[in-house]
Amino acid sequence: MRILFGTGNPGKLREVQALFGALDHEVEQLKDEYPEIQADTLEEVVIAGLEWLWNRHNVPIIIDDSGLFIETLKGFPGVYSAYVFKTLGCRGVLKLLEGDENRTAEFRCCAGYVDANGKIITRSGTSPGRIIHEMRGTGGFGYDPIFVPDGMEKTFAELELDIKNRISHRGMAFAMLAKAMKE
Amino acid sequence: MRILFGTGNPGKLREVQALFGALDHEVEQLKDEYPEIQADTLEEVVIAGLEWLWNRHNVPIIIDDSGLFIETLKGFPGVYSAYVFKTLGCRGVLKLLEGDENRTAEFRCCAGYVDANGKIITRSGTSPGRIIHEMRGTGGFGYDPIFVPDGMEKTFAELELDIKNRISHRGMAFAMLAKAMKE
Repeated sequence: MRILFGTGNPGKLREVQALFGALDHEVEQLKDEYPEIQADTLEEVVIAGLEWLWNRHNVPIIIDDSGLFIETLKGFPGVYSAYVFKTLGCRGVLKLLEGDENRTAEFRCCAGYVDANGKIITRSGTSPGRIIHEMRGTGGFGYDPIFVPDGMEKTFAELELDIKNRISHRGMAFAMLAKAMKE
Repeated sequence: MRILFGTGNPGKLREVQALFGALDHEVEQLKDEYPEIQADTLEEVVIAGLEWLWNRHNVPIIIDDSGLFIETLKGFPGVYSAYVFKTLGCRGVLKLLEGDENRTAEFRCCAGYVDANGKIITRSGTSPGRIIHEMRGTGGFGYDPIFVPDGMEKTFAELELDIKNRISHRGMAFAMLAKAMKE
């Protein structure tokens, strides 16, 4: 089946093509920018985005949304992680956590699929971990240099890409989505 | 003319009723929660909200959106001021500015009107000022206790309500909107 993937990120496109290629789906990039709503959860953002895109294209489409949720900051930056990264960056988040013992955080990803009839399914993945006290590593993007996943010593920016992808919130969300689509 | 005002805030409703009552418009509350999009400007949020509401009601509607834009934080919290207030609060914003000499900030409001035919106009107002180093005052809401408007010594939370309304970004935006609607 041919599926459009709404993303501007070539790296994400390759990851998803590899995953869905194994299931005999042909994934092509959809460059349409869809409106992301202000909401409390990633799932609401994904569902609204899929509805908007489906109303325009009427074909199977996949999108995803991710965020970093920091416990002691009541989930901030959460759904607005991209905006906060652009304005405050990792340094701003570290400053907000100065003097804070509780460094618990998790990355979350919600991946969603709308079929040709407009039926939507979503699946979510999480990477629990902690925010360290300084930036480490040059790989990845966004908050990766300040996030160490549980059970690891390296930040997401220090981990090899294939290891990061295997344990990551996004990999998990897409793997579960692919499974749900098969059923 | 009868106009619906999309707001959940009774104080704002009274202000707008007073302003538009003087122009022989009867303003009633519209409690529909419309989706607010993630965008770089308040105007984009307002226009998308008006389009969404108008598609459902097909009558004249007013809405507004406000935010605090801090220069040294690249405009943060901006369009996401409400969410940031819920999570970080005034204390979080003060922490982000610790050690920063540049305290320049402004409140912005965009007010928009869609007429019975779906035609949209928007007008914006600003309150330039600065972020002080501690919270002062118990009036107002949101970031009012840490914001002192230019030419004043008191914070928005210390000013008398009618003075604040007269010089505020919201008052200015609605006054200009009312003027544009007359023309």
